[in-house]
Amino acid sequence: MEQTLDLVNNAAGRRVPTLVNGRQSVPFMGVGQYKPSGLKAAPPVKSCSDYPLSGDKVQPSLKAALEKCGLKDGMTISSHHHFRNGDLVMNQVFDLAADLGVKDLVWFPSAAFPCHEPLIEHLESGVIHHIEGSLNGPLGRYASEGKMKKGLAVLRSHGGRWQAVQDGEVHIDIAVIAAPTADSFGNATGDRGPSACGLLGFGLVDSLYADHVIVVTDNLVPFPCVPWQIQGNNVDYVVVLDKVGEADKIISGTTRLTKSPDRLYIAELTANFVKAAGILQDGFSFQAGAGGTALAFAIYLKKLMLEAGIKARFIRGGSTKYLVEMLEEGLTDYILDGQTFDLEGVRSMRENPGHVNTSPFTSYNWHGKGNFAGLLDVVVLGATEVDVNFNANVVTHSDGMMLHGIGGWQNCLFSKCTILPIPAFRNRVPIIVDEVTTLVGPGELIDVIVTERGIAVNPARQDLLDATRNSGLPIRKITEIKAEVDELVGGAPQKPRFSDDIIGVVKWVDGTVLDSIFKVKT
Amino acid sequence: MEQTLDLVNNAAGRRVPTLVNGRQSVPFMGVGQYKPSGLKAAPPVKSCSDYPLSGDKVQPSLKAALEKCGLKDGMTISSHHHFRNGDLVMNQVFDLAADLGVKDLVWFPSAAFPCHEPLIEHLESGVIHHIEGSLNGPLGRYASEGKMKKGLAVLRSHGGRWQAVQDGEVHIDIAVIAAPTADSFGNATGDRGPSACGLLGFGLVDSLYADHVIVVTDNLVPFPCVPWQIQGNNVDYVVVLDKVGEADKIISGTTRLTKSPDRLYIAELTANFVKAAGILQDGFSFQAGAGGTALAFAIYLKKLMLEAGIKARFIRGGSTKYLVEMLEEGLTDYILDGQTFDLEGVRSMRENPGHVNTSPFTSYNWHGKGNFAGLLDVVVLGATEVDVNFNANVVTHSDGMMLHGIGGWQNCLFSKCTILPIPAFRNRVPIIVDEVTTLVGPGELIDVIVTERGIAVNPARQDLLDATRNSGLPIRKITEIKAEVDELVGGAPQKPRFSDDIIGVVKWVDGTVLDSIFKVKT
Repeated sequence: MEQTLDLVNNAAGRRVPTLVNGRQSVPFMGVGQYKPSGLKAAPPVKSCSDYPLSGDKVQPSLKAALEKCGLKDGMTISSHHHFRNGDLVMNQVFDLAADLGVKDLVWFPSAAFPCHEPLIEHLESGVIHHIEGSLNGPLGRYASEGKMKKGLAVLRSHGGRWQAVQDGEVHIDIAVIAAPTADSFGNATGDRGPSACGLLGFGLVDSLYADHVIVVTDNLVPFPCVPWQIQGNNVDYVVVLDKVGEADKIISGTTRLTKSPDRLYIAELTANFVKAAGILQDGFSFQAGAGGTALAFAIYLKKLMLEAGIKARFIRGGSTKYLVEMLEEGLTDYILDGQTFDLEGVRSMRENPGHVNTSPFTSYNWHGKGNFAGLLDVVVLGATEVDVNFNANVVTHSDGMMLHGIGGWQNCLFSKCTILPIPAFRNRVPIIVDEVTTLVGPGELIDVIVTERGIAVNPARQDLLDATRNSGLPIRKITEIKAEVDELVGGAPQKPRFSDDIIGVVKWVDGTVLDSIFKVKT
Repeated sequence: MEQTLDLVNNAAGRRVPTLVNGRQSVPFMGVGQYKPSGLKAAPPVKSCSDYPLSGDKVQPSLKAALEKCGLKDGMTISSHHHFRNGDLVMNQVFDLAADLGVKDLVWFPSAAFPCHEPLIEHLESGVIHHIEGSLNGPLGRYASEGKMKKGLAVLRSHGGRWQAVQDGEVHIDIAVIAAPTADSFGNATGDRGPSACGLLGFGLVDSLYADHVIVVTDNLVPFPCVPWQIQGNNVDYVVVLDKVGEADKIISGTTRLTKSPDRLYIAELTANFVKAAGILQDGFSFQAGAGGTALAFAIYLKKLMLEAGIKARFIRGGSTKYLVEMLEEGLTDYILDGQTFDLEGVRSMRENPGHVNTSPFTSYNWHGKGNFAGLLDVVVLGATEVDVNFNANVVTHSDGMMLHGIGGWQNCLFSKCTILPIPAFRNRVPIIVDEVTTLVGPGELIDVIVTERGIAVNPARQDLLDATRNSGLPIRKITEIKAEVDELVGGAPQKPRFSDDIIGVVKWVDGTVLDSIFKVKT
């Protein structure tokens, strides 16, 4: 955003604006310090007399449905990212908006992917005012270069997105929910159909709170579509397209096991740490992402579980074939899944009652009566940078470019033990730094960093230090590891150069502003 | 209520108050005529920082949980009726309220049963101000005799109860949700445990909108309780009691097949009518209640389906072993269930993914974006009286006593064909009358009356008259059947004598006031 915003120092000592896309925002006050007040957002009361009694809400085209919703200048259009890089719907939506002469729309996706690069054209022409959400890849680079001039990128965790809609911070005018299978009433599921993506939990809050909801499918089945991950009673219109997603791109490209000896070593160290710390007990729970190292961790952990005859009560997904195997082999009672990363995850979700559909509400929403994240015994996550106080970054790279979303990362930090297994370098750039480029996770919530050069335990976790003291594991001070790495690469690297222009903000799980993302000087 | 209320004539020509328990109310305006406005009710925003991060919300006692909720004079306490006449929780709640010296509580159950007769004591002492809900049996008689002096009974359908909470007409301070199985986080299910009742859908709206939610269980399981029919993220406290329900009374006593030759004949006529009307087609759907005649209808219908090689797409429950058999024999793809009436229903709900948990939101709420009721091809319901214009009554008896709740009855009237199979007499009292004692269902929505003396088709349904003209079925004018019956019993019977005091109102599905219930002169 080219305008200069008034900045204040928040409780983490980061400079943040108090006005974000025209809304007054609360600077981060410390973990658990912000007390919300007031009532949840409330959608308008509807009446069955305004909907076909036959239940048939099918419209002849996506354009017709958008027009029926009263699409007009300035509206906020939302979508979910369960199709990941295979989404075929949202570019069409904004092309149609352009055809209809509509301007200044806000796109509020749960995440944007490289397939959405064509939307840059609509940002340039003014059809899209700005994108309020996590911007991966080309759109992130576009924003980082200061080109998304009319609004800030607002990066929220999955739980934070639910919180923002639930609390009325973001009002959705039209939710477009692409669904692999649906009926004409609007009941929809992600676990079957040619574009099956497993579940639709990232679109659930949109269906509950948006003024207008359009379900778009390429697989219309007779009522009832069971399960109804999205309830037709919240849906206004149904649209049938030839194809809503490219199946081979829906499945995440990241679910490939690492072959790097360093990363395999890090994964094994992580599993061994979990065991040494006493976490590996009957009925325990864990979550690991779909990155190569996390997958390798799960495989090492499984080996340790088999050796010790230990069974988990639940595993939190993103699910992969590795987790599905553990469920089917009886190594866990449940997978509580937020998104499926491969076809085995989709199949298991469809077939196995122990593979449970969750949403950001159950798992992550900070403004609920608790959430599942705190119940996890251990979570294994990634990071682009970590500082010597265990603060971590997942959204910007060392060159300052905003290239990743937050996902569930912030939400997971509330588990009983948060471990970041990360390489000490990436492309000869040290990962442990004096100060993270962007603060996404406060160090007080990050317990352990595992690198190929040793394991650093947060001094605040004396219990973990005590438990692992005589384990034979290479437990070291984080400053020691950093010094060794810096020396190897010939000193800490040059920082990226930023202008004073803010191009985005990082929200904390409670809706407060944790950090700002600045335009990169190129 | 002893006070005399101002009455107006509504669109059905019934005298109704405009003030109901202190709230301005809209008189019935005609089916589909009332247009709601405004926003749905919104519960307060909560924060995880006010809940234990471990997820353990268990309180040492029900009393402790009520105190933590800030129980105080004038609050509204809600509960569901899935335990039917076996509920062991709600009498305890009000006994505790009495111990705590609290007064003027409003009880807002989804239905009251004879087991709740002890609450009369709390009505007398002022602990309970009034009961706002369907009052069956002793409590209904108590109210009909004008003894519930401080407030009106407000009779709502299952869908109407959801609408009333959703629209903010009834604000629940504390929801007490008895659950056959739960975890310490508050996730709860009805489909397993020693007090298994199948599902908890009638308590779902309470969990979503109440300020405070207490889950009470006698079967605490380790997190996660799967399925979570009630989401722990909406729950404040969990209480463990020795026993929450008497299993043998949880199962409905009404699910006994009729042995009356007249009723069996009526059931068979009804099934034959459905076939003759052309409704019995592959992929059709039906709903029949758990009364003896309705059960017999389902069995006759099954026979016709087998003969014709026809399969249903879905059956709406209340489920019974008869419907479960049809599901398991492949005669329907799905049972969409709102409550289980026997243990086979509970088992099937637990085991069969085709036996689907529904709620009043999906099935019945008129103030949603459609509901499932209109998608049903045919529904078979009971009635205490029907008039010559097909208006029907289900809440008062011919003696004027309010003895039944509405249940889903009103909501079901929106199916494509509504049939009431009823005996022409009960205890020598004719069921077809000139004017119903209490109007619960407008005649324009009731298509067919089936008696042992013939079938009356609503003249508005010329299509049904045409389809069945040459069927050989005894199709007759409703006035003819009435005249014949009246002559047999020696003239239309004397009407009950009412005072001018209103003791309750019947709400229509849209929240408007359809009729008043007057105090019976005794």
